[in-house]
Amino acid sequence: MAKRQLKLGASLNGVGNSISFWRHPNIPINASVSLDFYKEQALKAEEGKFDLLFIADGLFINEKSNPHFLNRFEPLTILSALAGFTSNIGLVATLSTSYSEPFTVARQFASLDQINGGRSGWNVVTSPLEGSALNFGKGEHPNHSLRYEIAEEHLEVVKGLWDSWEDDAFTGDKENDVFFDRTKLHTLNHKGTHFSVQGPLNVARSKQGYPVIFQAGSSESGKDLAARSADAVYTGHETLEEAREFYSDVKEKAIAYGRKAEDILIFPGIGPIVGRTEEEAEQKYQEIAELVSIDQALNYLGRYFEHFDFTQFPLDEPFPEIGDLGSNSFRSTTDKIKQQAREQGLTLRQVALQASTPRTSFIGTPDQIADQIQEWFEGGAADGFNIRTVVPGGLADFVDLVVPVLQQRGLFRTEYEDDTLRGNLGLKVPANRYTLETVQ
Amino acid sequence: MAKRQLKLGASLNGVGNSISFWRHPNIPINASVSLDFYKEQALKAEEGKFDLLFIADGLFINEKSNPHFLNRFEPLTILSALAGFTSNIGLVATLSTSYSEPFTVARQFASLDQINGGRSGWNVVTSPLEGSALNFGKGEHPNHSLRYEIAEEHLEVVKGLWDSWEDDAFTGDKENDVFFDRTKLHTLNHKGTHFSVQGPLNVARSKQGYPVIFQAGSSESGKDLAARSADAVYTGHETLEEAREFYSDVKEKAIAYGRKAEDILIFPGIGPIVGRTEEEAEQKYQEIAELVSIDQALNYLGRYFEHFDFTQFPLDEPFPEIGDLGSNSFRSTTDKIKQQAREQGLTLRQVALQASTPRTSFIGTPDQIADQIQEWFEGGAADGFNIRTVVPGGLADFVDLVVPVLQQRGLFRTEYEDDTLRGNLGLKVPANRYTLETVQ
Ligand SMILES: Cc1cc2nc3c(=O)[nH]c(=O)nc-3n(C[C@H](O)[C@H](O)[C@H](O)COP(=O)(O)O)c2cc1C
Ligand SMILES: Cc1cc2nc3c(=O)[nH]c(=O)nc-3n(C[C@H](O)[C@H](O)[C@H](O)COP(=O)(O)O)c2cc1C
Repeated sequence: MAKRQLKLGASLNGVGNSISFWRHPNIPINASVSLDFYKEQALKAEEGKFDLLFIADGLFINEKSNPHFLNRFEPLTILSALAGFTSNIGLVATLSTSYSEPFTVARQFASLDQINGGRSGWNVVTSPLEGSALNFGKGEHPNHSLRYEIAEEHLEVVKGLWDSWEDDAFTGDKENDVFFDRTKLHTLNHKGTHFSVQGPLNVARSKQGYPVIFQAGSSESGKDLAARSADAVYTGHETLEEAREFYSDVKEKAIAYGRKAEDILIFPGIGPIVGRTEEEAEQKYQEIAELVSIDQALNYLGRYFEHFDFTQFPLDEPFPEIGDLGSNSFRSTTDKIKQQAREQGLTLRQVALQASTPRTSFIGTPDQIADQIQEWFEGGAADGFNIRTVVPGGLADFVDLVVPVLQQRGLFRTEYEDDTLRGNLGLKVPANRYTLETVQ
Repeated sequence: MAKRQLKLGASLNGVGNSISFWRHPNIPINASVSLDFYKEQALKAEEGKFDLLFIADGLFINEKSNPHFLNRFEPLTILSALAGFTSNIGLVATLSTSYSEPFTVARQFASLDQINGGRSGWNVVTSPLEGSALNFGKGEHPNHSLRYEIAEEHLEVVKGLWDSWEDDAFTGDKENDVFFDRTKLHTLNHKGTHFSVQGPLNVARSKQGYPVIFQAGSSESGKDLAARSADAVYTGHETLEEAREFYSDVKEKAIAYGRKAEDILIFPGIGPIVGRTEEEAEQKYQEIAELVSIDQALNYLGRYFEHFDFTQFPLDEPFPEIGDLGSNSFRSTTDKIKQQAREQGLTLRQVALQASTPRTSFIGTPDQIADQIQEWFEGGAADGFNIRTVVPGGLADFVDLVVPVLQQRGLFRTEYEDDTLRGNLGLKVPANRYTLETVQ
């Protein structure tokens, strides 16, 4: 049997992957709304045989938001535009289940999946920011557990709508004037707690069946949603141990739901900084870290805690005791920040700088970075990685310098196996629930 | 002063512009979800220097729906995909105000408008079909007047969100670490009858200011919405007289609202059938008309009347008396059908065949069609036309044969004037409501 293969995603974020990134002389200030900038990165990732492009999203800003969040492309539109320039790479759009209609979500993703011939993915998120409710005329932002309950039902409805048409429904018999087979059109008639959606959907499935379902949110509820209903998980970890624990936890949960371990792929997000030498890599990190002011770092940290104002605390004393704050928004992230501060006895300044410009183990020469990746991949911590660009040219460096090493080691493809995202990820095409014969 | 110039749109509809179109041997049965098919037409329209591509939409299907409606691209995604293949032509997507969130609509259009550099348009519709409510968990489909009331407020909110950022807000001062000017970010704080939306929007305006607002819906309420708030109207008329009356009515209404007549452009939709000779054109019409069965024609007609079953009436007797039916869905269309039937004493069969395969005056040689267009354009009936493809190759015939005649007559451009849709349509860039200096 062929060696297990690593999967790679490229997270595209314009001016935004570290808060000081935009200040670097090589970054155009309109990068977050520049088609040229996105296109260049998409082509580079496809040149590197990446599995997918990944676009994050958010539904609330204020004057304290990070530069990239203020003025950026909406994921479905920019990925539809990139579909035309690319031919094999997957296109994964983030969209929140807390502020969208399943019928519209099902349609837009199904349409994207027709446009790109089965290369779409949906990153299901629940919107961490309270303020989102204000943009959608909802009185209150649903709390953390309710958001996940809504997400579960929303996703079920969307999948149900995607099955509206069996794969061979459109017979197109011109002679006998029969456009489709009426027995292969199905009406969902969903009536649930949060949604009532009749169907059918007015778009058919693509050749990958459903778009690939990513889930991003690493709390217990988040893992649970992923284990039951997702094909892949986007997560973030700073240490191998932490990543391993998360990995085996999600896989076990999936097995408990009657699935196989390989039915769900775990993608930690990493921001590699590659240099031809260690010094060069270190210098790239410093260039970015030095552009961050402590005020910005505190503001960046505060956003995870419902825009909490950390400037009221002394910078060089232990990270303050703030109780439950943050647990209703980015829970998994805020829990981790508090825990690390406590365990490592960090000051507020240290926590803020680490949050805004993380110094991870993925800094070094191509071989060093490939070693780390291999260790995580073979050590039960990851099935693939979402590569974030944290220094200018970060993605190109990774493609030009690290990918060839991974290929030489037989860990990563040199050619695409397929032209669908499911095909490249090695995921099965889900059978249509109404089709009795096994589809494969 | 230069001669007043005609504007042209191409309505892209896959297998769908006449109900028998898909049965023609030259039409691929998957045309409505074929990127190649859409791309080919988009390129042809751009070759013909058309102002815009236009994509209609709908939110409810059942087994009686027309082939094209069953499985088609969602407008925003397909137009985002076509953005990359084109460089000057406008991209107008239909989206309903009855079943969407203003924040999401504002974002997706603003994002498309950044992607294509100011070539987007939004065709505002209110969803005629009752069944739409069932796909969005809404108990009842809002009635005709309520739908227009919602549309008015929705559109106001969207425009307000589009003004969140003044055009020079993003200073991007790297030296002083100032990404944007805080005095140029504005929060809408809309609290109305149907929507409460705080803002700001997380996408800036493009160089055309707002996407061009089309309105489609020709009842009194529809005309009123257009006259107050739209840049252009998509409408349908069978006779010059009818078109003239509509045209002057909308222009007068716009003037009553304090606008200029040229601030709003009227685009009747026409389905020209061009032949090198009259006989060839007639033959093309017959080829399509012969493919329609009377059953299909009755079904097609029924859809305008809330899927009313016309088969219960004798075919060759006068069109039946059906009272108010249809006035809560496609009101302007159903009123017209009833009126024509009454005035011309048509039978049910005649009405059904005319509705499904209209035989208009836009059939003939290139010169004959150019004559008709010129007559409408110069006779106070149209500022431009939305060209629908009703016979295979219809758009290409129009571009290859009719456009050169219009150009020779000095009625239509030979080169694009601009790379924004507003620029080509000769519409002003709307000033940002918060910017005191006049923007132009
Ligand atoms: C790695 C990662 C990426 C995320 N990306 C997004 C995103 O792009 N947009 C978003 O609204 N939320 C995003 N979230 C937030 C989650 O969707 C969720 O709302 C929040 O994290 C709380 O869930 P949790 O406590 O399960 O992590 C992300 C979370 C994680 C852990
Ligand atoms: C020329 C024309 C085109 C239309 N296109 C659409 C469309 O693509 N999608 C849609 O939902 N409604 C469309 N409508 C319907 C209107 O949005 C509206 O719901 C319906 O016609 C009732 O409005 P009216 O009585 O003002 O015409 C169209 C109407 C007209 C007259």
